[in-house]
Amino acid sequence: MSTVHVIGAAGFAGAQLAALLDAHPHFTLGQVTARSDVGRRVVDVAPEYRVDAVLQQFDLAGVGQGDFAAVCYPHAEAAAVVSDLVDRGVRVVDVSADHRLNDPAQYPEWYGFTHPRPDLLAEAVYGLPEINRDAIRTARVVANPGCYPMASLLAMLPMRGRLTDIVVDAKSGASGAGRTPTPDVHYSSVADSVRAYKVLSHRHTPEIAQQIGASVLFTPHMVPVDRGLLASCYARIDGDVPHADDLRQTYVDFYADHLFVEVVDEPPGMRAVQRTNFAQVCPMLDPASGRLVAFGVIDNLMKGAAGQAVQNLNLMAGVPETEGLL
Amino acid sequence: MSTVHVIGAAGFAGAQLAALLDAHPHFTLGQVTARSDVGRRVVDVAPEYRVDAVLQQFDLAGVGQGDFAAVCYPHAEAAAVVSDLVDRGVRVVDVSADHRLNDPAQYPEWYGFTHPRPDLLAEAVYGLPEINRDAIRTARVVANPGCYPMASLLAMLPMRGRLTDIVVDAKSGASGAGRTPTPDVHYSSVADSVRAYKVLSHRHTPEIAQQIGASVLFTPHMVPVDRGLLASCYARIDGDVPHADDLRQTYVDFYADHLFVEVVDEPPGMRAVQRTNFAQVCPMLDPASGRLVAFGVIDNLMKGAAGQAVQNLNLMAGVPETEGLL
Amino acid sequence: MSTVHVIGAAGFAGAQLAALLDAHPHFTLGQVTARSDVGRRVVDVAPEYRVDAVLQQFDLAGVGQGDFAAVCYPHAEAAAVVSDLVDRGVRVVDVSADHRLNDPAQYPEWYGFTHPRPDLLAEAVYGLPEINRDAIRTARVVANPGCYPMASLLAMLPMRGRLTDIVVDAKSGASGAGRTPTPDVHYSSVADSVRAYKVLSHRHTPEIAQQIGASVLFTPHMVPVDRGLLASCYARIDGDVPHADDLRQTYVDFYADHLFVEVVDEPPGMRAVQRTNFAQVCPMLDPASGRLVAFGVIDNLMKGAAGQAVQNLNLMAGVPETEGLL
Amino acid sequence: MSTVHVIGAAGFAGAQLAALLDAHPHFTLGQVTARSDVGRRVVDVAPEYRVDAVLQQFDLAGVGQGDFAAVCYPHAEAAAVVSDLVDRGVRVVDVSADHRLNDPAQYPEWYGFTHPRPDLLAEAVYGLPEINRDAIRTARVVANPGCYPMASLLAMLPMRGRLTDIVVDAKSGASGAGRTPTPDVHYSSVADSVRAYKVLSHRHTPEIAQQIGASVLFTPHMVPVDRGLLASCYARIDGDVPHADDLRQTYVDFYADHLFVEVVDEPPGMRAVQRTNFAQVCPMLDPASGRLVAFGVIDNLMKGAAGQAVQNLNLMAGVPETEGLL
Repeated sequence: MSTVHVIGAAGFAGAQLAALLDAHPHFTLGQVTARSDVGRRVVDVAPEYRVDAVLQQFDLAGVGQGDFAAVCYPHAEAAAVVSDLVDRGVRVVDVSADHRLNDPAQYPEWYGFTHPRPDLLAEAVYGLPEINRDAIRTARVVANPGCYPMASLLAMLPMRGRLTDIVVDAKSGASGAGRTPTPDVHYSSVADSVRAYKVLSHRHTPEIAQQIGASVLFTPHMVPVDRGLLASCYARIDGDVPHADDLRQTYVDFYADHLFVEVVDEPPGMRAVQRTNFAQVCPMLDPASGRLVAFGVIDNLMKGAAGQAVQNLNLMAGVPETEGLL
Repeated sequence: MSTVHVIGAAGFAGAQLAALLDAHPHFTLGQVTARSDVGRRVVDVAPEYRVDAVLQQFDLAGVGQGDFAAVCYPHAEAAAVVSDLVDRGVRVVDVSADHRLNDPAQYPEWYGFTHPRPDLLAEAVYGLPEINRDAIRTARVVANPGCYPMASLLAMLPMRGRLTDIVVDAKSGASGAGRTPTPDVHYSSVADSVRAYKVLSHRHTPEIAQQIGASVLFTPHMVPVDRGLLASCYARIDGDVPHADDLRQTYVDFYADHLFVEVVDEPPGMRAVQRTNFAQVCPMLDPASGRLVAFGVIDNLMKGAAGQAVQNLNLMAGVPETEGLL
Repeated sequence: MSTVHVIGAAGFAGAQLAALLDAHPHFTLGQVTARSDVGRRVVDVAPEYRVDAVLQQFDLAGVGQGDFAAVCYPHAEAAAVVSDLVDRGVRVVDVSADHRLNDPAQYPEWYGFTHPRPDLLAEAVYGLPEINRDAIRTARVVANPGCYPMASLLAMLPMRGRLTDIVVDAKSGASGAGRTPTPDVHYSSVADSVRAYKVLSHRHTPEIAQQIGASVLFTPHMVPVDRGLLASCYARIDGDVPHADDLRQTYVDFYADHLFVEVVDEPPGMRAVQRTNFAQVCPMLDPASGRLVAFGVIDNLMKGAAGQAVQNLNLMAGVPETEGLL
Repeated sequence: MSTVHVIGAAGFAGAQLAALLDAHPHFTLGQVTARSDVGRRVVDVAPEYRVDAVLQQFDLAGVGQGDFAAVCYPHAEAAAVVSDLVDRGVRVVDVSADHRLNDPAQYPEWYGFTHPRPDLLAEAVYGLPEINRDAIRTARVVANPGCYPMASLLAMLPMRGRLTDIVVDAKSGASGAGRTPTPDVHYSSVADSVRAYKVLSHRHTPEIAQQIGASVLFTPHMVPVDRGLLASCYARIDGDVPHADDLRQTYVDFYADHLFVEVVDEPPGMRAVQRTNFAQVCPMLDPASGRLVAFGVIDNLMKGAAGQAVQNLNLMAGVPETEGLL
């Protein structure tokens, strides 16, 4: 049994993560911390999770060498905690954005802060087992992917290196905006409506581009859904356009060893993956233009955040990748 | 043309009211005030209303004798403004709760403040045309009914004086909770769930009891709906239980002169009244127990707030009751 | 390992049941039958369940003595199948309504058919472990409770025998209406609206009355929710009205040995029980009238149908009651 | 006053159209026909519209020369009725798809039938006033645009002739799928989920391509919304990429005389146009790639169907274009 500390468990992703770890056969919940709601139980904050652990203030002194931690703080606030934890001998999954971008220069540009530990940034492994499984196993810092990049990348990775003119039109449920009540997540704002937001400026854009190795036109939309994220991806294919059957086979082969990614025949809905760590992807070809049309759908709090964090922790701890996730 | 000032137009009810008055053939919008969002247009705050009026700070000096005003401030804050306006010769519809309860002693008990103007409270007319139409015409202060009382009372009024053991189980959309973002109106809290709240303690309880003349067990529920309020009412009938046809005829007769109340044959859904000033009521009899089962449904922002305010203003101004509402 | 046949697995409850059994450590899925969709896998019909079992036509000859079965046919159609199965030595959970009412005379009145096996009806045990746990263990036929009765009864059972003037105002998600597409479950009918239906005539009325031992005024409402059912119950208490703390203690004591019923302090929302076999109940007292106000909330497809069926099968098979349900 | 017959008023678009015409100051409702629900009033079929007109079977003999008609039949069934009506001297708005495609050869390919009246098809005017206002005024047959083309075209028309590599990713509410209950519009299918459908095969694809004059990769998605349609459009711009301000000015100028199209600064949500005949469009530029990102949002039953039909009827009848629509 290994101990995992959840740093920032009052938010949606953190509470989900605490719940997954609380029921996990290999991990024990260590500190479950929050900056609000200290003294309340996780179940009081998130009644759908029957987790009795009490939210406490983070106590670095109480963290032991060889422990694991998952940091669910907002960006710019996570980096310092990750730094402290790593220096103390803790292996960390950073659920925030603070170790996702390879180039430190992108942090001032996209996130508005100077990265305090470029060395850790350089060392961090992008936590997508579908491309980095082995590196994750031994990493000290794993950068858990963003929710939009997760769905988008899974939809396109099998064709990486061959795609240009990429357009990603993504639809996310409101839980993706976090637990803080704002006018934008008021029920009367979200219900019965769809709108694009942060067009051409969303911070997940460089993350998708970095991993897919090409520039991306990314447009997120908020949809009246609680949990769920669908990325509809459009791209030109360099070189010969494959036959549709071959395209599909390329995806099936690519994901053959990746249990959490299901290649499906019909454009997938959110329903099939909600509250699971599964992603479903569906590649199609537009015969008229030779373009790829590929869909990726996930639960933004599971494969898009907490579930993926557990998958990464499983790899880091050397236990089966699906432990606690099926 | 008469001028109507809307005091507190940044909230849901106030913005809807500004929109109704902006399109009203008899009224002209005067001051459209807010304490937040000053300088923005109503349409910027509430894009579904194409109202260009700019939100300003309330300026008592700019209000003229003979004007009308509708005050949409929160309870305890409206009373002072109503007082100032009336003293200046303005006739007021108070959309807040500050003039609804006859007994000043109920204000400290239910609303936590001492009423500053018991004289105006005594003078105020409860703004339900279905019982007080004539008094509204000449009133200086009209207390616009609460949304829950409106639906509940319309469902039971034709049997007033004959009902005991009243249970009102009401279901309201999230817009009833107001525009302020709170955890309770976060999309992820409201969507796909129903819960009761303020059980046995909701402030609309004494208002319903006062108007129906009997004690009431009132339970509000929040439902995943934007606009709409359904009151399901259960009560014993004193004396002989009427035949179902006679019961229905009693309702039809009672509402014969009240265009905005439709007596329907099937339990009404919210759909039929949303974004209208109509209420639908449906009385039924439980033959086993001789009890009344009566449903009342409204749009909480229309017949339950802004629409009713316009209906009252129409009566006060001596124009047709339906003006600007059909 | 015991074999369980799921008869009627194309509907919402049946598919959920097949999924629970497919993942159950003690049970093996036997026949998974349907009258529509034969030849398709469960996952094709219900993509959220990753069940590869293929829907087949029911084959009585393929059922073995000592097997278990759960029958999810519509009422009036289940009775004959249950009869055949029992005669073959199979122990059955009837998820339909066909063995819930003690009095055969109620079937023509409420369900429009004459019960073909009054002997089995007399023998059947009402499948509510919270009152009949021991009898369920040895029953040949267990009548799985209706969804509305489940939530209503759990909310009131600790006070059974002391309640009169019972009003149950219940709110159910659309999945309770079944998988068949009808105008009433069209998205545009259900979304953003609430309405009562089958007022004073719903078939779950006599079932609630039978188990609570008193007449009940029952009003179901459809709410814009997928899965979830909330029963808000109002009743007079015979004899001395208990203190609120004592009332709560009565509930806590009553459910002390029943893990799936949680007595909570605040009126529970659907969120806390969705996709679980838990119920939450919350008893309150109206001091003004001495009436009980009690809430019961369940997932209508879990504790209200498939989850409860598994709980009953666990008892019948002598395995831990929570097996496959946590 | 002119008479307008509504042929096919039991569906969502037809009922909305009957309601608009019932309240129209210039038009009188003539026959209001349906193939189902004959004998019921429109309000019985669609309670949100207070229209007492009774649905009747279509009676060609009862239609007079000089009348107008709007045909809301499904595709392939409308063409024959339009033909009969035109031959009788009636001017028709065909709300179906049967007169939208210029090339008769596209009907067998996309709609599976041979067009019975290529002459009328050649004569029909595409009913988009923003490009064909004058031709609509005198047309005998106006082809009301499809809902997806309406939103997509309005988003791109100001740049028509300069766009290539067009991708339209569109999101429609469930009412766009029509009133017929099917598994795909079951509340439990639509709620809390998003999915693409008819990818690369939707019948609105050639209609968009025809009007924009370029091939289009079109992907429709169903979202958990009742009424509303958002088209997110991506395209390369031939020639010099304009400055963002100039692009916006191009849109403002293009729509200067078109009251129902609002050019807005922020990506528009459905909320702002629901239950109105307004469209909102928002053009943006991706500086990295020089691509246009343009949003168009409408109410699919108003500007996307019935409202647009009234707008066209207004033009045909020579009354103000906005009559009955504000």
